[in-house]
Amino acid sequence: MDIRERLGRNIRRLRQDKGWSQEELAHESGLHRTYISDLERVARNPTITVVDRLALTFGVPVGQLLD
Amino acid sequence: MDIRERLGRNIRRLRQDKGWSQEELAHESGLHRTYISDLERVARNPTITVVDRLALTFGVPVGQLLD
Repeated sequence: MDIRERLGRNIRRLRQDKGWSQEELAHESGLHRTYISDLERVARNPTITVVDRLALTFGVPVGQLLD
Repeated sequence: MDIRERLGRNIRRLRQDKGWSQEELAHESGLHRTYISDLERVARNPTITVVDRLALTFGVPVGQLLD
């Protein structure tokens, strides 16, 4: 599975585990809601600083989003 | 430590563990030598597909490059 697919699947899983909507994850992370939607639909190739921000928001190591 | 610093430090450590020059890592990964040098000097903010290619080259999970 492509790393962008792994990221999209992991964001959705971690977000739903927290019971957050995409809007709530956008608010918590400071990223735009449409960008969150794009990431979950594997429509983006984000930089590592974006992924680091999401990992900090979820309180998980970056590897849990990308491996 | 910023994620880009962690990446630069981990690339250098993994490369030296293999006894590779930046030129050899560039050849193995298909990335340009100057780009490898920039990553190690924390002068770039790469996308996750670049990091995935490096992880595959080193044979390690992406988390070992970013956490």
